[in-house]
Amino acid sequence: MTQNMNEMIERAKTLVEALPYISAFSGKTIVIKYGGNAMNDENTVRTIMQDVAALKIVGVKPILVHGGGPEINSMLSRVHIEPQFSGGLRVTDEKTMEIVQMVLAGKINKNVVSLLNTLGVKAVGLCGKDAGLIKVKKYSPNGTDIGYVGEIVSINEKLLEALTGDYIPVISSIGADEAGVSYNVNADTAAGAIGGAVGAEKLIFLTDIDGIRSKENDPTTLISRISVGEIEDMIESGAIKGGMIPKVRGCIDAIRHGIKSVQIVNGTIPHSILLELFTDSGVGTMVTA
Amino acid sequence: MTQNMNEMIERAKTLVEALPYISAFSGKTIVIKYGGNAMNDENTVRTIMQDVAALKIVGVKPILVHGGGPEINSMLSRVHIEPQFSGGLRVTDEKTMEIVQMVLAGKINKNVVSLLNTLGVKAVGLCGKDAGLIKVKKYSPNGTDIGYVGEIVSINEKLLEALTGDYIPVISSIGADEAGVSYNVNADTAAGAIGGAVGAEKLIFLTDIDGIRSKENDPTTLISRISVGEIEDMIESGAIKGGMIPKVRGCIDAIRHGIKSVQIVNGTIPHSILLELFTDSGVGTMVTA
Amino acid sequence: MTQNMNEMIERAKTLVEALPYISAFSGKTIVIKYGGNAMNDENTVRTIMQDVAALKIVGVKPILVHGGGPEINSMLSRVHIEPQFSGGLRVTDEKTMEIVQMVLAGKINKNVVSLLNTLGVKAVGLCGKDAGLIKVKKYSPNGTDIGYVGEIVSINEKLLEALTGDYIPVISSIGADEAGVSYNVNADTAAGAIGGAVGAEKLIFLTDIDGIRSKENDPTTLISRISVGEIEDMIESGAIKGGMIPKVRGCIDAIRHGIKSVQIVNGTIPHSILLELFTDSGVGTMVTA
Amino acid sequence: MTQNMNEMIERAKTLVEALPYISAFSGKTIVIKYGGNAMNDENTVRTIMQDVAALKIVGVKPILVHGGGPEINSMLSRVHIEPQFSGGLRVTDEKTMEIVQMVLAGKINKNVVSLLNTLGVKAVGLCGKDAGLIKVKKYSPNGTDIGYVGEIVSINEKLLEALTGDYIPVISSIGADEAGVSYNVNADTAAGAIGGAVGAEKLIFLTDIDGIRSKENDPTTLISRISVGEIEDMIESGAIKGGMIPKVRGCIDAIRHGIKSVQIVNGTIPHSILLELFTDSGVGTMVTA
Amino acid sequence: MTQNMNEMIERAKTLVEALPYISAFSGKTIVIKYGGNAMNDENTVRTIMQDVAALKIVGVKPILVHGGGPEINSMLSRVHIEPQFSGGLRVTDEKTMEIVQMVLAGKINKNVVSLLNTLGVKAVGLCGKDAGLIKVKKYSPNGTDIGYVGEIVSINEKLLEALTGDYIPVISSIGADEAGVSYNVNADTAAGAIGGAVGAEKLIFLTDIDGIRSKENDPTTLISRISVGEIEDMIESGAIKGGMIPKVRGCIDAIRHGIKSVQIVNGTIPHSILLELFTDSGVGTMVTA
Amino acid sequence: MTQNMNEMIERAKTLVEALPYISAFSGKTIVIKYGGNAMNDENTVRTIMQDVAALKIVGVKPILVHGGGPEINSMLSRVHIEPQFSGGLRVTDEKTMEIVQMVLAGKINKNVVSLLNTLGVKAVGLCGKDAGLIKVKKYSPNGTDIGYVGEIVSINEKLLEALTGDYIPVISSIGADEAGVSYNVNADTAAGAIGGAVGAEKLIFLTDIDGIRSKENDPTTLISRISVGEIEDMIESGAIKGGMIPKVRGCIDAIRHGIKSVQIVNGTIPHSILLELFTDSGVGTMVTA
Repeated sequence: MTQNMNEMIERAKTLVEALPYISAFSGKTIVIKYGGNAMNDENTVRTIMQDVAALKIVGVKPILVHGGGPEINSMLSRVHIEPQFSGGLRVTDEKTMEIVQMVLAGKINKNVVSLLNTLGVKAVGLCGKDAGLIKVKKYSPNGTDIGYVGEIVSINEKLLEALTGDYIPVISSIGADEAGVSYNVNADTAAGAIGGAVGAEKLIFLTDIDGIRSKENDPTTLISRISVGEIEDMIESGAIKGGMIPKVRGCIDAIRHGIKSVQIVNGTIPHSILLELFTDSGVGTMVTA
Repeated sequence: MTQNMNEMIERAKTLVEALPYISAFSGKTIVIKYGGNAMNDENTVRTIMQDVAALKIVGVKPILVHGGGPEINSMLSRVHIEPQFSGGLRVTDEKTMEIVQMVLAGKINKNVVSLLNTLGVKAVGLCGKDAGLIKVKKYSPNGTDIGYVGEIVSINEKLLEALTGDYIPVISSIGADEAGVSYNVNADTAAGAIGGAVGAEKLIFLTDIDGIRSKENDPTTLISRISVGEIEDMIESGAIKGGMIPKVRGCIDAIRHGIKSVQIVNGTIPHSILLELFTDSGVGTMVTA
Repeated sequence: MTQNMNEMIERAKTLVEALPYISAFSGKTIVIKYGGNAMNDENTVRTIMQDVAALKIVGVKPILVHGGGPEINSMLSRVHIEPQFSGGLRVTDEKTMEIVQMVLAGKINKNVVSLLNTLGVKAVGLCGKDAGLIKVKKYSPNGTDIGYVGEIVSINEKLLEALTGDYIPVISSIGADEAGVSYNVNADTAAGAIGGAVGAEKLIFLTDIDGIRSKENDPTTLISRISVGEIEDMIESGAIKGGMIPKVRGCIDAIRHGIKSVQIVNGTIPHSILLELFTDSGVGTMVTA
Repeated sequence: MTQNMNEMIERAKTLVEALPYISAFSGKTIVIKYGGNAMNDENTVRTIMQDVAALKIVGVKPILVHGGGPEINSMLSRVHIEPQFSGGLRVTDEKTMEIVQMVLAGKINKNVVSLLNTLGVKAVGLCGKDAGLIKVKKYSPNGTDIGYVGEIVSINEKLLEALTGDYIPVISSIGADEAGVSYNVNADTAAGAIGGAVGAEKLIFLTDIDGIRSKENDPTTLISRISVGEIEDMIESGAIKGGMIPKVRGCIDAIRHGIKSVQIVNGTIPHSILLELFTDSGVGTMVTA
Repeated sequence: MTQNMNEMIERAKTLVEALPYISAFSGKTIVIKYGGNAMNDENTVRTIMQDVAALKIVGVKPILVHGGGPEINSMLSRVHIEPQFSGGLRVTDEKTMEIVQMVLAGKINKNVVSLLNTLGVKAVGLCGKDAGLIKVKKYSPNGTDIGYVGEIVSINEKLLEALTGDYIPVISSIGADEAGVSYNVNADTAAGAIGGAVGAEKLIFLTDIDGIRSKENDPTTLISRISVGEIEDMIESGAIKGGMIPKVRGCIDAIRHGIKSVQIVNGTIPHSILLELFTDSGVGTMVTA
Repeated sequence: MTQNMNEMIERAKTLVEALPYISAFSGKTIVIKYGGNAMNDENTVRTIMQDVAALKIVGVKPILVHGGGPEINSMLSRVHIEPQFSGGLRVTDEKTMEIVQMVLAGKINKNVVSLLNTLGVKAVGLCGKDAGLIKVKKYSPNGTDIGYVGEIVSINEKLLEALTGDYIPVISSIGADEAGVSYNVNADTAAGAIGGAVGAEKLIFLTDIDGIRSKENDPTTLISRISVGEIEDMIESGAIKGGMIPKVRGCIDAIRHGIKSVQIVNGTIPHSILLELFTDSGVGTMVTA
């Protein structure tokens, strides 16, 4: 029984530590953006959704925002459309956009919704076209026409505010322009803009890296808390480089939208969301103003 | 000016006649099911949506339910799947269901939503998987396995009740079973079940016929009001037959779900919804208990 | 049926045009002042009250303000009091005031209330003495004592705000001074002051003329919209003159009380209120800031 | 100072005695019917209205109901109409009714309203025609046509309930039939019916007698509390007779309308309402079930 | 009966005079500090509590604050602790403080609560330790350590505001510091600080003197109303001196806490609270800004 | 990092397990009775209060009920009163009761309140005399007069319901009879009656034993869940005996008051309350209907 008692005491410590966090986040909105590799493994997705459902159950108001690269490409290939990219962005002609919308809003979105619904919560699948949620205008980087790629003009957060009390909104990153035409929108950017509009307490980017490291290849140099200014210094000094730059830019944007803190978390660590929110040490890197 | 004055008096009469109806329907929920040929012509769709938006503007709470036969077939053919039918019902294997869901919930649904949003109202696109809206079980007519075709088990109307105050819900007739698996659901049946669950004042079936006629081929024999009992007599006597039978069965089901009246209206007549609701004479056939 | 169909399309157009106006005026307060010749013909009064009741039914909050010249004179003659006027204003001694109050608040007012109540709405008859609705002080134009003629000091709109949700207030233009003594008040002025106090959307002067004309005797020169400044120019140029001047002064006063627009409408045109409010073209002349 | 101290102690006793009554009646509705001789003396009327205002100020919800015999006769004589009576009831032809309505609703009512308004409260003058307050049908005692004399069919208490929070309703005992035609109604009967409809705690008949006496001519035999059954016994035995019978019948009717107690109080005793309500001994006679 | 009638008229006058005060104080918070000799006589305490209960019954929100000198000394002597004083203040070591707390919060407080509860109201006994009601820091006059004597740092009025609707809070003048340690607090000071925090309309000091006199030994020179400035003049001139000085200082402090008026009342006069609040003349001395 | 990762996974498991319990108990009332040896050790008391504060922080509504045997005896001895017992119950004469009340309501109660207040929550100390919380009558077991020992007649839960939203009520087990006289009440019984009255989800008896064992001296036979019927069987069979009998009787009584489950928990195990409520296995014995 002594071993058991030690274990009980550890569990009690975890609870004593967690309860004030649970109380503090209760009633607060947390936007979670997931995508990329975190979406490929069914077990990982299920564990993530268990965390999201658990948050909802203790009164947190989660909002999910998702993209869907790999599945879009797979469907494009089934209808014999060759994906095209320009400067890292998908060139999205009308036929491509039709497939993007169907895959994001018709497949991935509604399947995540169904998964959450089997976990004891109620999710509602939306895209940026619903109730004018994401209003966009055509985005032409440096004047290049890359088709139906949108730049966010405004977020209509009313619908989300009406839903987050009882439901978990799951949002595909598609927007519409004034005429109702669909546009592809970067999911990281959409998550930041939505989080700002709803006054989110926190934005969590679920990725497949552990966070920002001071030395790129040394996992022991993981930074647990960093300011926007420090990130900019690290970019300038070259400590942050390559594929990491767009990720941290997304964090900086979100902070500028007024979100209090942005978290880069490795979605492949089991229950990383709960550990991040409800333990003193947390996991991943927290970016603050 | 006298001609103008006569015209003014006619308009005044129309208003005096309409105002009590407008008041009576204000705050009431009306489910509108549209589909089939009414969806093919862009002008017809736009006129219908103008009516729906106009209803919303004067305080009626419309809910749209749609199917989508022709577009599904076209997409199936693009991915080289041969549509199969058994006893008039689509045999829906897993790959077919994936396409059905993408076309209904990802394409048609979100495009109608966008169209309504350009008309000064706010629409939200849902399918039966959202928030457990349409719970189904597998439907096997006479024991025949026709795949993912669902029979409605329950409707969770909570989400609709939260939305109809400010938004127009637009619903794809897809459901999910307990495990979250998607099923195809007949849109007429879904409209009746939803109308019953939300306590709808009226269900309008927008079709491409004018209503029920006592003599099938004689347009002057259009019946403007008929009871469930009288319909059953006409079916027995053979006065209603063929393709008309499923339509009137849908009406009878809806009445049994507790909807006060069901209206068969020709959606290709411009503004048929407004004329039906807000004039003494109406258009089409009203079915009552 | 084609003729019928054309007629149906005309009616649909009327409805499509009217619905946004109905929605826009719903919940708004509209003050309607009627009096003079519009009160003499029983049919005209009944048609006006039908319009008022119809407004109420679709959610508009009408307030009626009335005067009552001819009936007052008739009653004065029955009790052998000779009406006296000074500068167009009734010289109102104590015995005259007693009759004025009985005729306005005891006869005309309560009879209009009864008429409205038979049309499916609920009206409540008030005068300016009720709940301090119209507080006045003695009005002595150029120092001339013309008896109990009052100048409005303040409006207590609380009672009206409590009533307009469920009832139609019908108000006799009588006021009381600090000591509770009754005074005769000009009904046009009272309507403007009340409209300003309740934040009315619109004030409608029901008269027996069609509105303001640019050429007095040419009905084809009816002006459908005019600003306060333009009216003042027309007075200066002599285009508006004689008995028309007090009417347009009433409009200008009302605009200065903060009412958005004032409408001069010919109450003898059947349903002129509905046509004015719910059609694009309207009838009569709209005066705006 | 000792004399003063004794006086202070008496006042303290009065307060200690009164406070629980004040609390008990606060928020309760009390209908006060006054008329007849109590209306003739200006000082008496003012003292009564001071009591009514005082009640309002401490949270009681008073409703006044009044008749107006003497003033009606005086006005009828001014317009040369000879008052006619049949079996104690005024024969009320159309011309008489017009005068009755003007005097009650246009003169007495509004003047009482003004008096109350000068005492720091807000009163609203109504008659039974307002908002369908008193619906009547023609009353023909024993088949005799006595003109526009009404029998109460129903009370619409909604308007009173909306007003009693902030205002003192003052009600002229006139009613309207289905067609909106005016009828004269007995004020005692109207007070009882109104009290029953609003669930009044108490109905006070302000008269010019002290209450019911066991021996008619002996003031020392005033009965302070009596039941309906005991009154009926006294009528049968002849102890109550003559003009007292209609008064006690009014009390019995009111009790049958569900009012808890009815009070006959001499309105000419200064502040008799306050003394009746807020002292242990009270004044007058209380009638209970 | 005439004698009785005169008495009735006197009582009516008392009521007419009192009702507006009752209305004016209804819903207002009044802090009553009692202590000293007023607590020694059981009859006096009972009469005071009857007044407090009567106030509650007519909607006033009384808060009682009490000290308890004599009973503390008696208990100290039972446990063989010698009371010690320094500069008029009790030197309060730990063992003394334990007794002080038990006597105030455990005996006097709960017994007053019980007494009030037998008078038809509901009282709740609190001390400054409850819900952080009175936060203190150690008070060392001129650097002298006199033990657990506290100086008020803050009042947490939330709990009082939650209770005063339905209950009468009875408060022992004990506070706690940040670490939760108990301190003795002067009851007059506590009453002033609490009254300021809850926005009390009035603070009544129940003492055993009649109020402030312009000539100390001449009861006919009782001042019924005095300003803070005038008191300071009287202190300077020596007209107020000795034991009277701390009492008037308490009044001045309370006024500075924002209480509108402070009343010094002789608690041994029967029903002095009611007479003070509900008569024109009042008793005692009112101190205002 | 792997060791750390294992630890993290354990903590995640604890959280995943706990969150639904936290959600389920949020908003629910839990009565915790503590006393006896659990009150003697300062560290134990502090750990218990940390748990109580933690419950409050995550939305549970705890109510504490306490007794206080040892401290009462110590105070009695200081004032030279010899404790007397009869049949296991304290014989409580008037002087004893005075001390019991001072120690419970004036010392223990307010000190627990202060401790909780330093832990970031707000506690309010009450006894059964406050607001008629515990109404009692004299209890004379088998006719023996044992003085001021009370039997509970009724609980007035209104005050608790008003406080549990924001505060933690801490209740001394003293009651008052109709005349306001104090009585000593058994704390276990009081906790059960209070729990029943407030509709508590659970009652926790914090004791110094681990729970009910099937073999009294074998700690491995701890029963984690038992029904009232099974307890009665064990009493009959002698498996439960001696000092354990009153404890389980208290559980049975509480269940009969309508509390869903009663928990016997060893208060000396650190954080036993949190472990009991928020882990699957729990600690101690749960008694259910």
